[in-house]
Amino acid sequence: MTQFSVTDTNRVRRVPKRAAYDKETVYAIVDAALICHVGMVGEDGRPTVIPTIHARDGDNLLLHGASTSRLMNHTGAGHDLCVTITHVDGLVLARSVFHHSMNYRSAVLYGKGSLIEDPAAKMAALAIFTEKLIPGRWDDARQPNATEMKATHIVSIPIDLAAAKVRTGGPVDDEPDYDLDVWAGVIPMETVFGELIADGRLKNGVTPPDYVRSFVAKGE
Amino acid sequence: MTQFSVTDTNRVRRVPKRAAYDKETVYAIVDAALICHVGMVGEDGRPTVIPTIHARDGDNLLLHGASTSRLMNHTGAGHDLCVTITHVDGLVLARSVFHHSMNYRSAVLYGKGSLIEDPAAKMAALAIFTEKLIPGRWDDARQPNATEMKATHIVSIPIDLAAAKVRTGGPVDDEPDYDLDVWAGVIPMETVFGELIADGRLKNGVTPPDYVRSFVAKGE
Repeated sequence: MTQFSVTDTNRVRRVPKRAAYDKETVYAIVDAALICHVGMVGEDGRPTVIPTIHARDGDNLLLHGASTSRLMNHTGAGHDLCVTITHVDGLVLARSVFHHSMNYRSAVLYGKGSLIEDPAAKMAALAIFTEKLIPGRWDDARQPNATEMKATHIVSIPIDLAAAKVRTGGPVDDEPDYDLDVWAGVIPMETVFGELIADGRLKNGVTPPDYVRSFVAKGE
Repeated sequence: MTQFSVTDTNRVRRVPKRAAYDKETVYAIVDAALICHVGMVGEDGRPTVIPTIHARDGDNLLLHGASTSRLMNHTGAGHDLCVTITHVDGLVLARSVFHHSMNYRSAVLYGKGSLIEDPAAKMAALAIFTEKLIPGRWDDARQPNATEMKATHIVSIPIDLAAAKVRTGGPVDDEPDYDLDVWAGVIPMETVFGELIADGRLKNGVTPPDYVRSFVAKGE
């Protein structure tokens, strides 16, 4: 199990027992999420946080977007980035207000990005994005043409440092509070898919392919 | 409908037709979310993005945490902050890979925070947090004592600038692609509550109160 180094940048200080620095834990959190929040420092020295879709290629986080976008141009230019991914898994109701909490899985990644320029590598990255969104889609949808490739930037961010933080389980109350007549427990939360909404201009006879049906059936 | 000013900081440049700057739209996105992602610039000039629970009191975003936490001490010290909130509402499958998208609602807020020191104001803020988590909880759970209040920081961030960005609806393909035999449409996504998990040390006869049952029944 490969570990990230632990430095002043990525060390989890609050509730360190919830921290993990191994790639297996961090990457599972990254891969289970559709979107991430990208933190950047602008030329004026101020922070900006932009949500965007991500994918992962080994130890590299991939972002993509329009070649005209500020997000792509900033993240592709080698500036320091912090990319954070969070799943909320439940509300934790304790007997005391103070010990209310949430169950969650979060990953905080640090690195600097660069644009992928090689056309074959760019195309391979787009395939990774599409297959992450829904496995089977890349071979079914119309793949990008030269104009679309030109309009798209892919940024690759080698993940230099990272940390995961995970809370699971029920509430932990102060010992005297266990005598209170207050209900305590967890309200689990999860993200689910709804019924497919077919586009209004589908050609006659086109139905959802098996890979879409099975993807929706098994949930996120 | 009160509008935020539109400046170089908060103007949405990519797909500006998806942007909104009115408080009603922005605050609905803020209030519907349990967590936000707080972007900060460290003393070393690097960005950090930390997920945390938030609440809103009028035009102020509230954060809370341990008085020892870096997040509280940084956000309470008047530094520039960017707080971003994102809901993912669906996967948008187009006929072309290029036009794949997501339905989402995001809000990006800018401001500088300060600690709430007044004990009554601090207690009122904790009530807002607790009631946002689950309405009815504040009067049921044991409220914070002096020690807990001392261990808790509340940061209030007047929302100086903000922008929302929202995508809804189905895919939009290039006209020639409508002839393709590729299924296109939307896979809706939503967050739902699961079955309550009672704490193992509940006192005999303590059952989930009505406000918990109705909260879970109506979904997030």
